[in-house]
Amino acid sequence: MNPEILFWIVPVASIIALAFAAAFFFNMKKADEGTDRMKEIAGYVREGAMAYLKQQYKVVALFFIIIAVIFAVMAYFNMQNDIVPVAFLTGGFFSGLAGFIGMKTATYASGRVAQACRDEKDGLNKGLQLAFRSGAVLGLTVVGFGLLDISAWFLILDNTSLVEAEGVSKLVQITTIMLTFGMGASLQALFARVGGGIYTKAADVGADLVGKTEYHFNEDDPRNPATIADNVGDNVGDVAGMGADLYESYAGSILASAALGAAAAAAAGSSYDDALRAVMAPMIIGAVGAILSVIGIYIVRTKPGANQTELMAALNRGINFSGILIAIFSALILWALGINNWLGLWGSIVIGLIVGIAIGKVTEYYTSFEFKPVKFIAENATTGPATVIISGIGVGMISTCWPVIFIVVGTIGAYLCAAGEFAFTAANMNQGLYGIGIAAVGMLSTLGITLATDAYGPISDNAGGNAEMSGLGEDVRSRTDALDALGNTTAATGKGFAIGSAALTALALLASYIEELKIAALKLGENFQVVGDITSAQLAKMNIAEFMASFDVTLMNPKVLLGIFIGAMLSFLFCGLTMNAVGRAAKSMVEEVRRQLSDKDVLEGRKKADYARCVGISTQGAQREMVVPSMIAVLVPIATGLVLGVPGVFGLLAGGLAGGFVLAVFMANSGGAWDNAKKYIETGDAPFCGKHTPIHDASVVGDTVGDPFKDTSGPSLNILIKLMSMVSIVTAGLNIAVTLL
Amino acid sequence: MNPEILFWIVPVASIIALAFAAAFFFNMKKADEGTDRMKEIAGYVREGAMAYLKQQYKVVALFFIIIAVIFAVMAYFNMQNDIVPVAFLTGGFFSGLAGFIGMKTATYASGRVAQACRDEKDGLNKGLQLAFRSGAVLGLTVVGFGLLDISAWFLILDNTSLVEAEGVSKLVQITTIMLTFGMGASLQALFARVGGGIYTKAADVGADLVGKTEYHFNEDDPRNPATIADNVGDNVGDVAGMGADLYESYAGSILASAALGAAAAAAAGSSYDDALRAVMAPMIIGAVGAILSVIGIYIVRTKPGANQTELMAALNRGINFSGILIAIFSALILWALGINNWLGLWGSIVIGLIVGIAIGKVTEYYTSFEFKPVKFIAENATTGPATVIISGIGVGMISTCWPVIFIVVGTIGAYLCAAGEFAFTAANMNQGLYGIGIAAVGMLSTLGITLATDAYGPISDNAGGNAEMSGLGEDVRSRTDALDALGNTTAATGKGFAIGSAALTALALLASYIEELKIAALKLGENFQVVGDITSAQLAKMNIAEFMASFDVTLMNPKVLLGIFIGAMLSFLFCGLTMNAVGRAAKSMVEEVRRQLSDKDVLEGRKKADYARCVGISTQGAQREMVVPSMIAVLVPIATGLVLGVPGVFGLLAGGLAGGFVLAVFMANSGGAWDNAKKYIETGDAPFCGKHTPIHDASVVGDTVGDPFKDTSGPSLNILIKLMSMVSIVTAGLNIAVTLL
Repeated sequence: MNPEILFWIVPVASIIALAFAAAFFFNMKKADEGTDRMKEIAGYVREGAMAYLKQQYKVVALFFIIIAVIFAVMAYFNMQNDIVPVAFLTGGFFSGLAGFIGMKTATYASGRVAQACRDEKDGLNKGLQLAFRSGAVLGLTVVGFGLLDISAWFLILDNTSLVEAEGVSKLVQITTIMLTFGMGASLQALFARVGGGIYTKAADVGADLVGKTEYHFNEDDPRNPATIADNVGDNVGDVAGMGADLYESYAGSILASAALGAAAAAAAGSSYDDALRAVMAPMIIGAVGAILSVIGIYIVRTKPGANQTELMAALNRGINFSGILIAIFSALILWALGINNWLGLWGSIVIGLIVGIAIGKVTEYYTSFEFKPVKFIAENATTGPATVIISGIGVGMISTCWPVIFIVVGTIGAYLCAAGEFAFTAANMNQGLYGIGIAAVGMLSTLGITLATDAYGPISDNAGGNAEMSGLGEDVRSRTDALDALGNTTAATGKGFAIGSAALTALALLASYIEELKIAALKLGENFQVVGDITSAQLAKMNIAEFMASFDVTLMNPKVLLGIFIGAMLSFLFCGLTMNAVGRAAKSMVEEVRRQLSDKDVLEGRKKADYARCVGISTQGAQREMVVPSMIAVLVPIATGLVLGVPGVFGLLAGGLAGGFVLAVFMANSGGAWDNAKKYIETGDAPFCGKHTPIHDASVVGDTVGDPFKDTSGPSLNILIKLMSMVSIVTAGLNIAVTLL
Repeated sequence: MNPEILFWIVPVASIIALAFAAAFFFNMKKADEGTDRMKEIAGYVREGAMAYLKQQYKVVALFFIIIAVIFAVMAYFNMQNDIVPVAFLTGGFFSGLAGFIGMKTATYASGRVAQACRDEKDGLNKGLQLAFRSGAVLGLTVVGFGLLDISAWFLILDNTSLVEAEGVSKLVQITTIMLTFGMGASLQALFARVGGGIYTKAADVGADLVGKTEYHFNEDDPRNPATIADNVGDNVGDVAGMGADLYESYAGSILASAALGAAAAAAAGSSYDDALRAVMAPMIIGAVGAILSVIGIYIVRTKPGANQTELMAALNRGINFSGILIAIFSALILWALGINNWLGLWGSIVIGLIVGIAIGKVTEYYTSFEFKPVKFIAENATTGPATVIISGIGVGMISTCWPVIFIVVGTIGAYLCAAGEFAFTAANMNQGLYGIGIAAVGMLSTLGITLATDAYGPISDNAGGNAEMSGLGEDVRSRTDALDALGNTTAATGKGFAIGSAALTALALLASYIEELKIAALKLGENFQVVGDITSAQLAKMNIAEFMASFDVTLMNPKVLLGIFIGAMLSFLFCGLTMNAVGRAAKSMVEEVRRQLSDKDVLEGRKKADYARCVGISTQGAQREMVVPSMIAVLVPIATGLVLGVPGVFGLLAGGLAGGFVLAVFMANSGGAWDNAKKYIETGDAPFCGKHTPIHDASVVGDTVGDPFKDTSGPSLNILIKLMSMVSIVTAGLNIAVTLL
């Protein structure tokens, strides 16, 4: 079929996704807000969240302006395309907008979900649907804006004279320019994850350390001054942060695949139509996945009085439906598109889907108390907090094994399927790397619904908070608890999925970096001599392996090796800085909470706690602390490029990607396992059980340590590994200039 | 000067070092053993240590026999030299023997040091000298046996017809064969570090968790049943383990440099004499360093009633003396040897020395309570154990930054100095990599005295234990405490030094791997076609860069990238397994100690605790738990070679080296910082002070978590990064066969 006709699925899907997001939002707004007290609580959380987001966007805007100016200067010196500064800004804008809408929805929804749960007959089903469809607003906004930005830019660049080249090389140029809008999304995501992560865990750690450990309050006790900040944090970190993270992976994987597809076609000397098919394929798969996600969302419902298993089954039904259908539809799309080796590429997509599920399952194994690892940690609570920490770190470190094997096997499989032969050769490298990108697109194609399950978690959690603080009955709380427990399982799987997709996306971005290098090299001068006597005409025809050989990016080049060292170190440094940031912000919070609770009137509930002050501490802490790690993430790739050139940057990206991925899995799984080890002890199923015993206290220490592990440092690494590639992509011109001139 | 005459310095230095080691040992044996009770306590520790070492050697012997048989089979199929199985065994034997002698000395010495400290007038000086010279037995045995093994093998291979080649290529073959005896040292070191690390921390954690936390005993309280096991552990882990680790680095760096020197000479088409000079240089520098160490050891003495600063100054005087002299002498050696670019190579040596000192200083900054990081962790103890852990992990992660920068800058500097020009080119790569090896030799040249300061620590610690358990007076205990405190500072610096030298040695080994590949390729067939139409005659003339190009070890080769992922993951997996091993062994220990102390007679000191049972638990735990991590370390490089070939192995080594180094620094420094944060709180200088307060208890949790960090998992990574290179070196023939046939 004509690829240009099929392309229109992309903007149409974008509009469908956004329309349903709007519909879900307005439907939710119509729901009953509940009692005055419930409205008041919801209002506090909403205000706090919006106040924080405003502050965050201020800092982000400053960064965006500075970087856009730098791009403009680079463009002026012909080291970057003129359109890049604008593309960069739109990427950041849409990512920010998606996060804003998602969070606004979540803060409107949670009180209403609590109110829906008050319905004695059908409360659970109503609550589930309201929470899930509110979460779907984030999912659909992310994919909708992602597809909108992609299709709009493609139409503009394809139909105007902004790009001067013709035929296949025009496609190569368009797709490489579009990649840079991923940089905007990346930077936005960085601040959202780091800032949001610091915010949420400063509040959580502060609330727990004093409230739970010192005063033995329950979760969300209204006397705890940090409790509103804690609820705000869920929205700021788990809704806005997660959304921005996956927006970046989603857009990044589609854009990287498109660029790799165009490059592969150019290297193979394919026709314009074949090249266009390769560029369209990832976009169309994303678009169809978005539509299937909408259908999947409608399938999620459960009967009145459903239990935990039935609730989980309802969610899974929606996800499985979308996943199975996209596996089938993508075969149809590739076949209808008439793309070369469609069956092989379909294999890559299916591999991407399977790797996503497999990493999710391993994450569940290591973080759910149904299985041995978490039980092992819980047993270690009998010998005190130290052994809880030791065993949790041990389990988390061991848990890195399978995800790495899945990524490795999946990458090999996706490469070989797309290459269409059972060998890694220089000739099939372009096509093989395209397969890796396509696998990432496959994994993320149903993001609309998987992200809905992620955002569902904090909404239910906040609904529970609202119910507790508003003093609603035990039965209501038990319904919100059931919804919340479900959210914890989906959150763990969602985190595994976010890391896995970040790794595949980063691999695709790493491959795209070479394309940017080639374009940059060509741009630097028509008769530019790359190595020895290679002219730009020869350069244009080179495949990846040949081009790379001219840079000596072998592992024996000390610059490469040292780049790998720096990359691995950077992940640790970044985590260390964010861990300490949480520590410092939490310390201020602890002191404030202790100060307020030293007032007997506050402690005994006669005087209202000063929630705003705690919200302010988290906001300021996050804002202050997010700058240094973020600047390091942006500046180190640039500095490495200036000092060590292209080989150093490659080493940095490879070391950062491998080291960052492993560290991220470790931190996320240790954190998740500690969390559930504590919950396991609380269930009372263990031979050692019950709240407020020394064993439980030991497990609370693990949980508190795990908070920044799983919600700040770990997820921030997802962004780091993608952002470093993105920064290198947009500074490829600089790298080339330093290395070759 | 004729290199063949200068070479004789090596065996002579070896004999001098061993002779002084023997003299120090017999002098120590003559010292007074003290009271019967002191003899009894020392006897328990000695018996426990020897019993453990016997068990460890049994397991190790089994592994050695299996691997020697595999080598013999490989040699039979021409994939390995016939001499390798024997060379492998001697490397392991001498490493084991050095550890045995060092530990035997330490266990004889500690009681005598306690007795020396009873001298009211000159106790401190006597104690210091006795402890330090006993530690020197380990230092001198390690360098003595290392030099003996190296010089003996070189003489045998050079003067017999075991190696058939002639001229420069004979040197290339000899040095590559000799490298494989490093594999024996590596394997021995692995078991010593992993087994010893598990032993010592199971005992320590067990002793602390029940004795200190639950019963508020002091350190080394004789009622604590695990206290003897704890003292045994210091010897097993910090004496035998540390010794084997550094034996491996010492021998590995000399052997790798010799191999790289021969290769560089071969590639440059140098004369036989020039090649011989390049091979001799690292050996002679090591030999002169050994002699200077002996002199340095004699300088360490202090006046009666010296304070802490004076004691430290005494130790530093010895170390600085040897360090400065080796810097001067190595210039003389290189000049006298008439080696090409002697000034540049001298620069590499000086860089190695400086990097070693710099990493030690950074380690001190991050782990001593004189500075901000540890104080920051201590402050976090006011908000409980969770914030102690969070801040300690944060500090440890941040602390990886400088060591990586030092290694990176040092490596670049050593390369460029040796290359003699300010550029990394394919032509100067051989010479540059030789410079990296020579820098590692420089760093380790005065190992005789630096290792003495390491072994001094556990001897003083045990002396304190003996004094406490024998009920000696407060004044004696205060003297042993002064010696012990000094040991803690030297231990932290020593750990930084061990990691830094491991990284440089591993880099040199990685470079040597290529030489082994070349030899293996040549061996596989006289007309073996490497890539396209390269014959073995052409192959022999290739430089490293050309040879590497034929394997496509570029970063865009997916096999390389995936190897990097596996390497990074392996470090985490290895740490996770050792952490959990400590956790499990400690848990058995805790249960046993609790069981014994539930007997009121034991608790109140009327009935003697059953020390032997705790010693047995640690021994069995270590023996059982060390097998799986060790097998993984050996098997993964082999499996990667079989599946992903040479590119995969390169990726694995680079990823493992970078990831492992950073992880090792993080774990060692977090652990050290927690330890000293606790000590800082105990000093009472802090605004929050004193033992057995909630703040102190929180810091004890950090210290306990830090134990396996700094003494088991962290140091074991030193071995992992070297061993993986070693395994790849000895299986190079297999890798070549898989990749090219």
